[in-house]
Amino acid sequence: MIKFALMGAGRIGKMHAAIINSHPGSSLKYVFDTNTGFSEQVAKANNSKVAKSPEEAITSSEVDAVLIASATPTHTRFITMAAKAGKAIFCEKPIDLDIGKVNQCMEEIKGINVPLQIGFNRRFDKSHAKAQQARVNKEIGELEMLIITSRDPEPPGIEYLKAAGGFFRDTTIHDFDLSRFILGDDPIIQISAFGDALFDENAKKTKDLDTAMFIMRSKSGVLIHVNNSRRAVYGYDQRVEVFGSKGMIISDNQIPNSIKIFDKYKTNAQDPIHFFFIERYEQAYKDQFNAFMESIKNKTKPKVTFEDGRNALIIANAAYQSLESRKTIDINFN
Amino acid sequence: MIKFALMGAGRIGKMHAAIINSHPGSSLKYVFDTNTGFSEQVAKANNSKVAKSPEEAITSSEVDAVLIASATPTHTRFITMAAKAGKAIFCEKPIDLDIGKVNQCMEEIKGINVPLQIGFNRRFDKSHAKAQQARVNKEIGELEMLIITSRDPEPPGIEYLKAAGGFFRDTTIHDFDLSRFILGDDPIIQISAFGDALFDENAKKTKDLDTAMFIMRSKSGVLIHVNNSRRAVYGYDQRVEVFGSKGMIISDNQIPNSIKIFDKYKTNAQDPIHFFFIERYEQAYKDQFNAFMESIKNKTKPKVTFEDGRNALIIANAAYQSLESRKTIDINFN
Amino acid sequence: MIKFALMGAGRIGKMHAAIINSHPGSSLKYVFDTNTGFSEQVAKANNSKVAKSPEEAITSSEVDAVLIASATPTHTRFITMAAKAGKAIFCEKPIDLDIGKVNQCMEEIKGINVPLQIGFNRRFDKSHAKAQQARVNKEIGELEMLIITSRDPEPPGIEYLKAAGGFFRDTTIHDFDLSRFILGDDPIIQISAFGDALFDENAKKTKDLDTAMFIMRSKSGVLIHVNNSRRAVYGYDQRVEVFGSKGMIISDNQIPNSIKIFDKYKTNAQDPIHFFFIERYEQAYKDQFNAFMESIKNKTKPKVTFEDGRNALIIANAAYQSLESRKTIDINFN
Amino acid sequence: MIKFALMGAGRIGKMHAAIINSHPGSSLKYVFDTNTGFSEQVAKANNSKVAKSPEEAITSSEVDAVLIASATPTHTRFITMAAKAGKAIFCEKPIDLDIGKVNQCMEEIKGINVPLQIGFNRRFDKSHAKAQQARVNKEIGELEMLIITSRDPEPPGIEYLKAAGGFFRDTTIHDFDLSRFILGDDPIIQISAFGDALFDENAKKTKDLDTAMFIMRSKSGVLIHVNNSRRAVYGYDQRVEVFGSKGMIISDNQIPNSIKIFDKYKTNAQDPIHFFFIERYEQAYKDQFNAFMESIKNKTKPKVTFEDGRNALIIANAAYQSLESRKTIDINFN
Repeated sequence: MIKFALMGAGRIGKMHAAIINSHPGSSLKYVFDTNTGFSEQVAKANNSKVAKSPEEAITSSEVDAVLIASATPTHTRFITMAAKAGKAIFCEKPIDLDIGKVNQCMEEIKGINVPLQIGFNRRFDKSHAKAQQARVNKEIGELEMLIITSRDPEPPGIEYLKAAGGFFRDTTIHDFDLSRFILGDDPIIQISAFGDALFDENAKKTKDLDTAMFIMRSKSGVLIHVNNSRRAVYGYDQRVEVFGSKGMIISDNQIPNSIKIFDKYKTNAQDPIHFFFIERYEQAYKDQFNAFMESIKNKTKPKVTFEDGRNALIIANAAYQSLESRKTIDINFN
Repeated sequence: MIKFALMGAGRIGKMHAAIINSHPGSSLKYVFDTNTGFSEQVAKANNSKVAKSPEEAITSSEVDAVLIASATPTHTRFITMAAKAGKAIFCEKPIDLDIGKVNQCMEEIKGINVPLQIGFNRRFDKSHAKAQQARVNKEIGELEMLIITSRDPEPPGIEYLKAAGGFFRDTTIHDFDLSRFILGDDPIIQISAFGDALFDENAKKTKDLDTAMFIMRSKSGVLIHVNNSRRAVYGYDQRVEVFGSKGMIISDNQIPNSIKIFDKYKTNAQDPIHFFFIERYEQAYKDQFNAFMESIKNKTKPKVTFEDGRNALIIANAAYQSLESRKTIDINFN
Repeated sequence: MIKFALMGAGRIGKMHAAIINSHPGSSLKYVFDTNTGFSEQVAKANNSKVAKSPEEAITSSEVDAVLIASATPTHTRFITMAAKAGKAIFCEKPIDLDIGKVNQCMEEIKGINVPLQIGFNRRFDKSHAKAQQARVNKEIGELEMLIITSRDPEPPGIEYLKAAGGFFRDTTIHDFDLSRFILGDDPIIQISAFGDALFDENAKKTKDLDTAMFIMRSKSGVLIHVNNSRRAVYGYDQRVEVFGSKGMIISDNQIPNSIKIFDKYKTNAQDPIHFFFIERYEQAYKDQFNAFMESIKNKTKPKVTFEDGRNALIIANAAYQSLESRKTIDINFN
Repeated sequence: MIKFALMGAGRIGKMHAAIINSHPGSSLKYVFDTNTGFSEQVAKANNSKVAKSPEEAITSSEVDAVLIASATPTHTRFITMAAKAGKAIFCEKPIDLDIGKVNQCMEEIKGINVPLQIGFNRRFDKSHAKAQQARVNKEIGELEMLIITSRDPEPPGIEYLKAAGGFFRDTTIHDFDLSRFILGDDPIIQISAFGDALFDENAKKTKDLDTAMFIMRSKSGVLIHVNNSRRAVYGYDQRVEVFGSKGMIISDNQIPNSIKIFDKYKTNAQDPIHFFFIERYEQAYKDQFNAFMESIKNKTKPKVTFEDGRNALIIANAAYQSLESRKTIDINFN
């Protein structure tokens, strides 16, 4: 039985707590949150203890693994603390918004050999993963184009925006990682970014964006397009299209039921797609955790590494550079 | 150039006139209708002459072929007249509502060797024909079940109902023929019929039906289901499902465009399907005529024979017998 | 915490054991199976005890509820025993294959007021339930036709067939219940049944059927069609179509992912649908159990009653009568 | 009856000849092609005369309108000749590959008031036009993103490539025009282009491209993505997605039939989409011609003007500038 300390008991922490406790091989031991109301609620619901400090939870001898779902600025501190305490680490994306802090953390944990997985959940979605397998197995021949559509159902509040580090580092970072996942060992080398605040007053106030488009190029010449919006009234629009010399595979949106409606005005109408990531990637969150458990048990390399987290951030930073300079930017992962 | 006499200049006759004149190998010479307003209009629009009598049109030495789209009770008389005059004959379904008259006509034209094709247009629909080919080529293995859904968009008026000969002989007769088409040389041997007037006041007044379901069995054991309605608010519902040992093929509904709509209430919504038979089977009507022209030119047997028309009527009659007796009826095609 | 005794530890019993233990409000206390290998395995996996006799499990004071997933002939005995012991009862379908035994059981438990739910899981499928709600809320106007397609992926073995009580009582019984569920308070009054053993040698040997079609009529005139097969190579085909004066709603098949494949030979191709009932109705089995727990907690009438189980069997019996007599049979639920 | 001179009797000229002659209000009088074999064949098939020179055809007093489907470098000369002769003009895209020649032609015909329509056929596709109407009618609220996928089924030969003027001016020019059509009075102001020759040896030899991606921005801030390939093995991939504040409309691919196939390996599989533009835009070519006839008859401005042709070329030129400079280019339509 792997015993977990959970850092952060907000919406996403709560979800992780339930996943930990429903896995037959793991249980939740400690919960820490600066908001003790949150930590008490999650501890009670999951039969675990509230930690008074991060140290108490992370360094406890009763704890084998740490799941970091706290505010982004705390991630690198908790990763370092847990690594030095020899605990397995699962950390939500992004590692940090500041590449300097990410690099420093990388230095501090260099040589420490603990499982460390970053929470890019989309890699674990069965349909997206099939699109990736199609590329690996050359089911579509040689990959030539990759198109990712990723749109949130509605914009977050201004407080979220203020802390999120900008649209590209908060949201598109998932698509940068998904692109890297599908491309495999063919690195992304160039990016051109467009973006604007078209409708969200909070985005305008915080000088953030709500709408964006990107083109990237891989070393082998694959062209990648990503488009993002903070608002899609029909739900959380998540599509991946891989196109190659022998065909195309689309990982399409998913709908909570299989109802089709025919009336005087429309035919084959389906209900709205899943509302947001908690619903859409419910199974992916579980499978991501299962994979982390496997890598602890089998002492194998986690499927999403610290380096994956760092590389996605580097692409996001290059995207901002492109946006400002109106130029195509060469990406440097060193 | 094959020159045609057209009998009947109503809605369906008008459509046939345009098809005759747009085919490069045929032209319309004469039009006859008891309603001279109709015949004059069609003659004018198609650069042809109004005939004062059926005989003038049918027996004219300028005429090579007769297309019969007049009222059903006139069909057998015109078939006989045209056959005796040595003309090629295309006759709209049904041959007649009275099997006695059909049999008498069969006797009268026995031994006369002219092309004679019945207007079961659905056999010429590309998608239905592919379902039939899938059965012939055993793409679905051995056929085990056949399911036909056929629903009109809205009920006709009471005058139409009074002359139409009943729901099964007017409407289901198409599905009986389509079943026979797909089954090929495996004859239908049994039928059980259910029907009711659930919503159409005119159907109630004329003791007709507006909703019906059938099960048939073929000699080899294939089970066939047909369902019909006089009203489908989303359009002319025309689906064929062939199911067998190696899979299933569905000839699905067709929509006039490829638009999909996503909004707050629905996703993937498409526009209503084609409104009715003129729109849905537009190409099938042309291809049916092309096939008739081919059989004249190549002196080959028409793809839908007098016997096909007679057999569909025999099944319709057996269906009425089942409806009344509440029994499964053995079908006798002799 | 509601404590359960589980009768039967075969494939379906095993599934129910896991559902009981994963519900926060229930736990598995006892397992009984005549095959002690089975009961030991399930008891061990679910942290519960093996009962040496049905009585030990059912009448134990530690037990609040009994879940009956044993062989069909034992159902009525266990229902009666559990009812007399005052336990809540969940019983898999069918209650029994013999209407006499069902009636006798009904007599024996008359007046005993315990929650008693029958396992017609399809009522709890979200999509089927939406089709039923569409009928209740008149989203499709007045219901006129109901069409259920229900095909297994592959035939069972001969031992299963020998015990199953015939295709209609084993398989179609689900569709009879689903029809009754959607029709609500409009009872089914007539049935015509067709069936054959077209491909399965075991069905032929046991004088059973592998392919069947039905038409039923409700009191208000709704026509219902059901078709069944023991083999659909593309998976467990489960479709419900409700058609009415204002439109149609289809509860369509469900596919384990949202992948679409485009290559030289095909477009929009999806993976096979769910393989069989365990996969297709995974959530429905859980929601069925949740509903049972609710009815225990809130002392409300279960959503599927003993009477529902009995009525489905009465329709199945009438179907056999129709098959043999080749007549439409009036159904008598008394 | 509007009498036409047809310039160019190659594949596309042949198609236009048939469209001219099947329209009830027009007929083909003259055909000119430098390849007299071609012009004789088309003249014979369409009951018209071969012209010995462009002048004979264009300036003939028997000719009311000129349809230019000859090689691109001849377009501006024939436009000027026809305009000065007072004929109505339909000219295939592009006007010319050289913006200098286009501007000179514009000067030469300035002040001559004849109907002059450019052959951007996609504007007349019913589904694309519905997407455009959705934008005009604000069915999707305020337009925020536009995504066009346009992929040919297979690359052309090297001779075609040598004359075509480059991928962007030959192929993407349709997507630039379609973008302008959907944007309406909101001009495109910026473009970033990526492209490569990934698979086509002829493209490599001619320093052309076979794969490309673009992002454009409109004055109001709409982001537009276009992706192109010279090869999609599943057919001519033509999709338009308009996304806005109230939803999304997709004009999806079209398939020649409505067949769906279910077998052991796949479900809902459809046949390949239309092979190429002749099949996909068959109706659009007719409707485009109908619109031109309407503008002659009603003396209204054609739906696609000389300016539309020029503006699409200006965008294509800016795209090449972006490709070479790796910068986002500001577009200047003056």
